Amino acid sequence: MRQDVIARLLRAMKQAGLDALVAISPENFAYLTGFMSPTQPLMRWRHAMALVTADGRTALVSVDMEASTIRAKATSGTEIAVWREFKFDAMTVLADLLRKHGLATARIGIETDYLPVGDFAALHDRVPQASFVPAQALLARLRQVKTSAEIEILRRLSRIADRSITEAYRSVGAGSSEMDIAAALTRGIYEQGAEYFKLMIVATGERSVFPNVGPTDRVLKHGDVCRVEIFPMIAGYHAGVCRTAAIGAAPPQAERIWANLTACKHLLLDVIKPGASSRKIYDLYLEKLAALDLPPISFVGHGIGLHLHEDPYLGPTEDQPLEAGMVLGVEPLIYETGFGFGMQNKDMILVTQSGCELLSDYLDTDALLIVS
Amino acid sequence: MRQDVIARLLRAMKQAGLDALVAISPENFAYLTGFMSPTQPLMRWRHAMALVTADGRTALVSVDMEASTIRAKATSGTEIAVWREFKFDAMTVLADLLRKHGLATARIGIETDYLPVGDFAALHDRVPQASFVPAQALLARLRQVKTSAEIEILRRLSRIADRSITEAYRSVGAGSSEMDIAAALTRGIYEQGAEYFKLMIVATGERSVFPNVGPTDRVLKHGDVCRVEIFPMIAGYHAGVCRTAAIGAAPPQAERIWANLTACKHLLLDVIKPGASSRKIYDLYLEKLAALDLPPISFVGHGIGLHLHEDPYLGPTEDQPLEAGMVLGVEPLIYETGFGFGMQNKDMILVTQSGCELLSDYLDTDALLIVS
Repeated sequence: MRQDVIARLLRAMKQAGLDALVAISPENFAYLTGFMSPTQPLMRWRHAMALVTADGRTALVSVDMEASTIRAKATSGTEIAVWREFKFDAMTVLADLLRKHGLATARIGIETDYLPVGDFAALHDRVPQASFVPAQALLARLRQVKTSAEIEILRRLSRIADRSITEAYRSVGAGSSEMDIAAALTRGIYEQGAEYFKLMIVATGERSVFPNVGPTDRVLKHGDVCRVEIFPMIAGYHAGVCRTAAIGAAPPQAERIWANLTACKHLLLDVIKPGASSRKIYDLYLEKLAALDLPPISFVGHGIGLHLHEDPYLGPTEDQPLEAGMVLGVEPLIYETGFGFGMQNKDMILVTQSGCELLSDYLDTDALLIVS
Repeated sequence: MRQDVIARLLRAMKQAGLDALVAISPENFAYLTGFMSPTQPLMRWRHAMALVTADGRTALVSVDMEASTIRAKATSGTEIAVWREFKFDAMTVLADLLRKHGLATARIGIETDYLPVGDFAALHDRVPQASFVPAQALLARLRQVKTSAEIEILRRLSRIADRSITEAYRSVGAGSSEMDIAAALTRGIYEQGAEYFKLMIVATGERSVFPNVGPTDRVLKHGDVCRVEIFPMIAGYHAGVCRTAAIGAAPPQAERIWANLTACKHLLLDVIKPGASSRKIYDLYLEKLAALDLPPISFVGHGIGLHLHEDPYLGPTEDQPLEAGMVLGVEPLIYETGFGFGMQNKDMILVTQSGCELLSDYLDTDALLIVS
């Protein structure tokens, strides 16, 4: 278990009047333990859970076939209760664990936005006197401010994404295909130590206007604008970096639009700091972007870490003061420029004590990248 | 919506006494509609749902930011109710849709193994007179027997996986790294039309004994045994194929172990047919494998399609007669041979009217593949 995370969690649990908390989603299991249960995100019935009591006891619940992996990754001496995959007794094992820790009548935080209603009913049947309350907001709030270990992972992932995209662009040219970009990109992220990736976007030429599209056999030609994005992962964490490039030379309007997106990026780097209002930042961005007279999307950034998107959003729907330790994916972009191409510049930014730091600093994006 | 799937579903709903059914998991949404809601599997709060009533009316529920994609993919004229991401009103919109279709007091099947307890509570509050019953078993049962369209996707995916692994092996040799295999493999699956992949295993030399490990910078050397597996995806469907190869020459014992795994494969191809008992098949496999005196795992195959693992399992924990149209991932394997390497031969097999058909037939695996 992560001692610094558990210490913060215990304070939050005390304020919320919780006797215990059970993390059950892949991201919150990873948040408390520091590692992923291998196939939990792939097969959602393979519940992996982490119990924390108000007095600081901890225990894990694992499916039998992952127990040896969990045991190897957990701190030595960690209590691990094992349930049997083909007996479907995860909730029975969790209920027994709660009773063993004197929690049969306790007030217990759980993730009601993750735990399926059928599992909840089984759990409730087995500890009917316990009171279960939603704990996802408490966990999400804690996760917004990253620990130094989390920041190091996100810094590393930002570099992996940024460098892999840049090198993938440098390995291709007119006549290469989107698949060449994809092959170089996937090779690059694994070679630099990523464990996996979630979502790869390779959108070139007329396809560059589409939000979430993967690579095809489209052949790059002179004057194409390309959007390439990837979310490499380590230990459950994601970075998201997107880079735009032109093949050979920028088409008309591309430099002008890029100059605005670059100005937006520098504006954001100027205004992101502790205490800044997330909504006000979005408003300032909209003001700067307005010079283009092209359609914005409904946010310019969002928290990122154990999920692709986390709070806070830099957008119109909420208003939250930023805090040191937050990590944001920030993305000035225009999908539909009206000129047959889209442009996007997504960076990873850490809120520091005095301002912010660009974590994705491998490629200088001030000038539009031209792939020759 | 898929008319053949809906027709079968309506019969099953009638037998189960359901007035309506709401599919809400990514796999069952894709099962009914024939396509994925793009980011639903990546961000679980982005609910995409499909409603089917006992008299055959259908409607979809989509988050605002995916609505245009859903509209483009759905049959023209499909009713689509849209909820607003940052208003978190998916259950309100679903409840309104249920009322609009006269289902406020109906008996409605839902996936209680997917719908989070918090969402269920919100839904129940808004249609308190409706009765919600678990429908996941009904859907899983239907999904076991594939339609001809599903079989074609799985046939294509089996070929993509098999051919990509084979060509990745042919592109490397002693001195190449696991990353070279990964780069060729990911390029190969996208180039052949996969949209994504879930899980890539590249485990060579001493790493070949580990179940679920990705590629590293390990350099291949003469005599290495390699296990390579990938699950490419199209429209939410997966194929899983694993191939084992030796670099330059097979080490001692490898040919002997492979000959047994090959004999197991042919045994399985002989006994898999409609009416065969899933448990009996596992018992026959264990008998054949016993000649090696090496440890088996707890199943030799499982259904596959919209999930990596589906029922039926060919294992000791259940017994189900096979049916024509089932597609199985079948995998004779020994992770820990005791000789410093593991071996695995995972194929995709379709149960036909009279027997079975090997879908992953690109590489002849009877003799161990030697990479020169």
